[in-house]
Amino acid sequence: MSYFGDLISTVFDRRYRKVRSDEVDKRTTSDLCEALLSSHGEVSGVTLARNLLDRYGSMSSVEKTAFFEFMMHELEIDPDAVLSSLKAYSEKPGKGSYRAFAAACEPRRQELARRLNQVPGATGQLVAMRKDLLGMMRERPDLEPLDVDFKHLFSSWFNRGFLVLRPINWESPAEILEKIIAYEAVHAIDSWDDLRRRLKPSDRRCFGFFHPAMADEPLIFVEVALTKGIPNSVQRLLADEREEIEAEDADTAVFYSISNCQAGLAGISFGNSLIKQVVSDLSKELPELKTFVTLSPIPGLNRWLGGSDLEALKSAENQALAAHYLLEAKRPDGMPFDPVARFHLGNGALVHAVHADADVSENGLRQSNGTMVNYLYDLNQISQNHEHFVGEKTVVASDAVKALSASVTPRD
Amino acid sequence: MSYFGDLISTVFDRRYRKVRSDEVDKRTTSDLCEALLSSHGEVSGVTLARNLLDRYGSMSSVEKTAFFEFMMHELEIDPDAVLSSLKAYSEKPGKGSYRAFAAACEPRRQELARRLNQVPGATGQLVAMRKDLLGMMRERPDLEPLDVDFKHLFSSWFNRGFLVLRPINWESPAEILEKIIAYEAVHAIDSWDDLRRRLKPSDRRCFGFFHPAMADEPLIFVEVALTKGIPNSVQRLLADEREEIEAEDADTAVFYSISNCQAGLAGISFGNSLIKQVVSDLSKELPELKTFVTLSPIPGLNRWLGGSDLEALKSAENQALAAHYLLEAKRPDGMPFDPVARFHLGNGALVHAVHADADVSENGLRQSNGTMVNYLYDLNQISQNHEHFVGEKTVVASDAVKALSASVTPRD
Amino acid sequence: MSYFGDLISTVFDRRYRKVRSDEVDKRTTSDLCEALLSSHGEVSGVTLARNLLDRYGSMSSVEKTAFFEFMMHELEIDPDAVLSSLKAYSEKPGKGSYRAFAAACEPRRQELARRLNQVPGATGQLVAMRKDLLGMMRERPDLEPLDVDFKHLFSSWFNRGFLVLRPINWESPAEILEKIIAYEAVHAIDSWDDLRRRLKPSDRRCFGFFHPAMADEPLIFVEVALTKGIPNSVQRLLADEREEIEAEDADTAVFYSISNCQAGLAGISFGNSLIKQVVSDLSKELPELKTFVTLSPIPGLNRWLGGSDLEALKSAENQALAAHYLLEAKRPDGMPFDPVARFHLGNGALVHAVHADADVSENGLRQSNGTMVNYLYDLNQISQNHEHFVGEKTVVASDAVKALSASVTPRD
Amino acid sequence: MSYFGDLISTVFDRRYRKVRSDEVDKRTTSDLCEALLSSHGEVSGVTLARNLLDRYGSMSSVEKTAFFEFMMHELEIDPDAVLSSLKAYSEKPGKGSYRAFAAACEPRRQELARRLNQVPGATGQLVAMRKDLLGMMRERPDLEPLDVDFKHLFSSWFNRGFLVLRPINWESPAEILEKIIAYEAVHAIDSWDDLRRRLKPSDRRCFGFFHPAMADEPLIFVEVALTKGIPNSVQRLLADEREEIEAEDADTAVFYSISNCQAGLAGISFGNSLIKQVVSDLSKELPELKTFVTLSPIPGLNRWLGGSDLEALKSAENQALAAHYLLEAKRPDGMPFDPVARFHLGNGALVHAVHADADVSENGLRQSNGTMVNYLYDLNQISQNHEHFVGEKTVVASDAVKALSASVTPRD
Repeated sequence: MSYFGDLISTVFDRRYRKVRSDEVDKRTTSDLCEALLSSHGEVSGVTLARNLLDRYGSMSSVEKTAFFEFMMHELEIDPDAVLSSLKAYSEKPGKGSYRAFAAACEPRRQELARRLNQVPGATGQLVAMRKDLLGMMRERPDLEPLDVDFKHLFSSWFNRGFLVLRPINWESPAEILEKIIAYEAVHAIDSWDDLRRRLKPSDRRCFGFFHPAMADEPLIFVEVALTKGIPNSVQRLLADEREEIEAEDADTAVFYSISNCQAGLAGISFGNSLIKQVVSDLSKELPELKTFVTLSPIPGLNRWLGGSDLEALKSAENQALAAHYLLEAKRPDGMPFDPVARFHLGNGALVHAVHADADVSENGLRQSNGTMVNYLYDLNQISQNHEHFVGEKTVVASDAVKALSASVTPRD
Repeated sequence: MSYFGDLISTVFDRRYRKVRSDEVDKRTTSDLCEALLSSHGEVSGVTLARNLLDRYGSMSSVEKTAFFEFMMHELEIDPDAVLSSLKAYSEKPGKGSYRAFAAACEPRRQELARRLNQVPGATGQLVAMRKDLLGMMRERPDLEPLDVDFKHLFSSWFNRGFLVLRPINWESPAEILEKIIAYEAVHAIDSWDDLRRRLKPSDRRCFGFFHPAMADEPLIFVEVALTKGIPNSVQRLLADEREEIEAEDADTAVFYSISNCQAGLAGISFGNSLIKQVVSDLSKELPELKTFVTLSPIPGLNRWLGGSDLEALKSAENQALAAHYLLEAKRPDGMPFDPVARFHLGNGALVHAVHADADVSENGLRQSNGTMVNYLYDLNQISQNHEHFVGEKTVVASDAVKALSASVTPRD
Repeated sequence: MSYFGDLISTVFDRRYRKVRSDEVDKRTTSDLCEALLSSHGEVSGVTLARNLLDRYGSMSSVEKTAFFEFMMHELEIDPDAVLSSLKAYSEKPGKGSYRAFAAACEPRRQELARRLNQVPGATGQLVAMRKDLLGMMRERPDLEPLDVDFKHLFSSWFNRGFLVLRPINWESPAEILEKIIAYEAVHAIDSWDDLRRRLKPSDRRCFGFFHPAMADEPLIFVEVALTKGIPNSVQRLLADEREEIEAEDADTAVFYSISNCQAGLAGISFGNSLIKQVVSDLSKELPELKTFVTLSPIPGLNRWLGGSDLEALKSAENQALAAHYLLEAKRPDGMPFDPVARFHLGNGALVHAVHADADVSENGLRQSNGTMVNYLYDLNQISQNHEHFVGEKTVVASDAVKALSASVTPRD
Repeated sequence: MSYFGDLISTVFDRRYRKVRSDEVDKRTTSDLCEALLSSHGEVSGVTLARNLLDRYGSMSSVEKTAFFEFMMHELEIDPDAVLSSLKAYSEKPGKGSYRAFAAACEPRRQELARRLNQVPGATGQLVAMRKDLLGMMRERPDLEPLDVDFKHLFSSWFNRGFLVLRPINWESPAEILEKIIAYEAVHAIDSWDDLRRRLKPSDRRCFGFFHPAMADEPLIFVEVALTKGIPNSVQRLLADEREEIEAEDADTAVFYSISNCQAGLAGISFGNSLIKQVVSDLSKELPELKTFVTLSPIPGLNRWLGGSDLEALKSAENQALAAHYLLEAKRPDGMPFDPVARFHLGNGALVHAVHADADVSENGLRQSNGTMVNYLYDLNQISQNHEHFVGEKTVVASDAVKALSASVTPRD
């Protein structure tokens, strides 16, 4: 269906580029919003929406706050309208009464966002708008309900069914690649040469989720190494000088970095879908791949270990402590203390192995004394692991990790 | 950005094809729905959703009705929850209270639809589901509120900003073209040869709106003839043997047919955006084009003329009556009686000319005695025409048409 | 590398379309040719070439003959120049002397063709020019050397390394598909519905070779059915109502029709490359495919059987005679009498089975009394079969076919 | 026709990747060549060719020389065969005799190259092979005739009609872009950031010629700046901090760098076609562009000025000397001494203006004391300028440049 793709791209291309607001509308922002909300059809709506987005783009922080306040308070629900429409619907259920109730329950700011989104390219601008809002919310918790609406809309727009998985490689546009450099959050990419080492070799892969209306922005991406056996050191994995193998000769796919790219999409999770899809695609392309595993940081380990004299620990001790931490350290709600553990276990992975001296970078030493962990994605067990984790909060682990953990004398 | 397009297509391609539910889940449909609604993350959600969609696909009409009843009544709002959450939010506005209110107001069937939509390819199936629902609603008006929810979701998903305009031509995939044949609603296409005559010549164009998640289904399309001067006969426009001109030599673009394709998207309007976009794109590509005009049917004319001895009318009389009808025949709400007139005038077009004997097909004679009308899209006037029409219900028309209309003695 | 593809297409697109010779050059055709041959650089060359091609396009048959005569006789080698340059090169081998020799040996018509080919889209026009020439050669055998030059050039331009294999399916452009209908040479396609039956089902495939400079013209294509077991009737294979299977469930790929498309490329063989490539691609895509086989006509059978009372033959007799014919009927040079047999055996296939009543169409009955044959492509044996066939003219066949053949009493 | 592009790319992609010679053939290289030349059809030919190319790829310099000697001497023409076939053809012209003559005149090394080229991806390897040969030819002039054959073949394969013009921009694959960095020959690109500055801004363009069989290798590319007015300094043009303009606001397109990329294609000229095509495409896309001009180095100026005390010259003197040099300094054959001048004048450009202090880089000072020149491409005059230059060796120049030149007292 390459036909579709092309045409999509052609059109997007044209649309993104030629967008310039022709005239400046002198009405106040709130008047423009009201006009947009009341516009019939789209004849003038798109022009209004573009004007508003352009205006937002050049607002100061103070003006943005005022705009959010306007959305929060002027485009708020009317409790009386909710009550009366609910009453009417309850008494006489029907199309009209239900439509009135639904309209009354939804604050007009949601419709405003939808109408702003009529402009080609607007989706990315709205995501950036929410990023601004999230940044302000610490100081302005009264704006939080507005974020509930953004998140609700984005959950609908960025539904899994609308996302597209794409390989990212050395043939990808520079425009995408420079964003990969910028967004890599786990093991920083320090140059285009470093990037090439992660993308070009036959035993390296990268995949990202994209949304058709934000085609030049990855939403999340994962970096994969194809290896023989399960690796125990991220520095060796990323070494300048290492022996490349043919993809066909690998038996293991290692997910060594997952990065979310869009702060404005916080709370809308893509990671589990991404890993599942990549596992599925890779196993079709390379049937020799038998093991799908991460090489993950343990970001909470040292914090959990607290004031211990960490540097004095031997590798074996580190390993045992890490195993123990991953299996036993829990939050009050019974979930693991470690956020990366929560993510992978929640996806149905299990704790497969821990390795001392696996990340000897400054960051790796600081967060976990250099220890890392492999979470294993076993397609046959993912569902049941997931169910047990979500239901009974069971942390599934290999016997080896369990034994390591058991070797630790409980600290308190 | 052709890169994006390709990858989109590659992936869509793969995804659409390989989809087979691996296992049949034996739970009842409502149990499956409850499981889907309660599933955490997407680990098992996509599998559940696929199972449900597959099951729906093989349901009998009776079973579908039962499924809609389940959605309508079992996944309905809880008025008490709305009341209490509204009270809590009013008393203590905040993230938690607002989120609870928003959740209470939205029936769970909306979340069900969003979760079904996680499956690649599901969007088209959900559109088809609404088509089924619309077909049942005459006999089951109690299901109408369910349709309000579908329409609400689809308005968000099929937002103008997510749609893609694509040329449809003789290089388009047969898979798309056979749908053009099937969906053409104004002047039927009776064979692939007929289709070729409408798509291949240098003075013919066709454009459609598509949604990336339903890439093989046009949502709406418009057929365009590039001509010298404004045509006054659709039969001459579509004649087998006619003299083709070079696109560069045309001064006029004639929109002679607009067809909506998806019954399941009823009420979600794309037509005005489509025409505006096509006018904009064509005028960039072919700067010699000065006039953008329709050659439109007048579907309500003969019905409005009622029992008159229509066949006896002369061409000039037909023309005058048509002008009068378009300018003066109104519904109780003051809007034009003619649906096509409402559409184009609502878009900001004006009534430019009427032509007798312009559609001498059986259908053309039956609906308007063969008379047709040109609506003119003048980019400089569209906005103000639209405003006047929407505001004061003013029907803008050329002097010639006004004169024609004025020549008719009012009928009652 | 979809990037490349797109850009290729974009550019080709633009180039093909906008080509109009701006001015008519009034010089004689031979003067134009001389001017083109003497033009330095390409500044005016492309314009001259386009003028010549346009002029050729509107020539009468008589004028074309005159043009070919001009190419044959006026742009012929000069024997004296060959002799003297050969002498000079032999005496003092070097860059200059060799270049002079090479120039003297090559008639200027080859350079003319290369310069004509500078015009985008010219390659297809030159192929059509050779088609014209081939049509004239029966009456004008003196023009045959000119064809030797065309064939020489085309062998270089249509080198296997420049060809591209493409799937042709229901998503292919109508522009390509109508050519498939037109070019199918074995089992005629009688409508778009018939075409859809051959392209759309999951158990049907079609592949063609294309040249990037003639992107809208297939050079050769093969139609493939994916089946369980080896089929013995082409009518059942092509039946309107048949049970479709999933591609993944097939164990056999049947090449049931191969059609050359370009008369102007006669003698430049693509067929063997095509089959090898398709076998290779299909076995990667569908690892369950174990058998690659044709269902082929036996076009020479009835001619070879001569005046026999063919209609009286029983199926078993037909079968035995066909086996005998395929294995024993030889041309004076020792090669099989049957052209289709020569093609597949030359590719390294073997005679696997013969089936009576396998093509009961008028054409099938006329040429072989309805009998057809499966040639088997066994990737492990292709090379050695080919060597034996080319070397010792050995016809490899299954034991069953050999036994059938042996059962026939030699006819003379 | 994006369809074509995609499929091309898909297939190329697949083919390039999966190519591994399965078995090593132990025959000598010359035996392999003989086997390839005698192979019938392509059944084993492609395998042989791939083996040979792989083997060549791992040859030492000495082995490569031996291979070229083999091609030069063992696959040489046979003078007796040329003589006898010429005689036969002269006596009895016909298909057979002409074919024999053509075969005798062409050394078998040409057929060897064509057969090697059957392998997907081979074209680039053969271009690299010629690069090796050119490198050796200084020491081994006896191999020069072999290069005549390579050049002859490549002229046919890289015919203008087979080349594709592509924009190169910030959305292009990194794989292409790193080659742009490597191949830039005029004003070095020193980092990815520098590259971004040349490709991403709306007033910068880059275009290259590509061949479909070497899709990831540009053959030649040109960098273009869109400006208001004609620039007189390349440093200002390439400055980090400069004011970007909208492409639509530019009136001038400046070709400020043209780089050939493939040493193995030496002597096969693309430059004039490239500029003509880019001028044509840009003027369609941006109708406001009125002036197409280069900002070119004058590489031979200082060499021609010889031992003069160049650093003491004032800007005005430099300018006058440069004008004089460009108009008057000639080679013995009457052509301009300056190679860049020969190129642009040969394309039909004229000398429009000279600017002192226009390239104050080390290289610019060394070759021309910093002076640069604008060659103007005036579409209305290109053909006649070209004719006059090629015919009468007239150097067309603006009055201003002529006046400057005239102001110089002839040096000898």
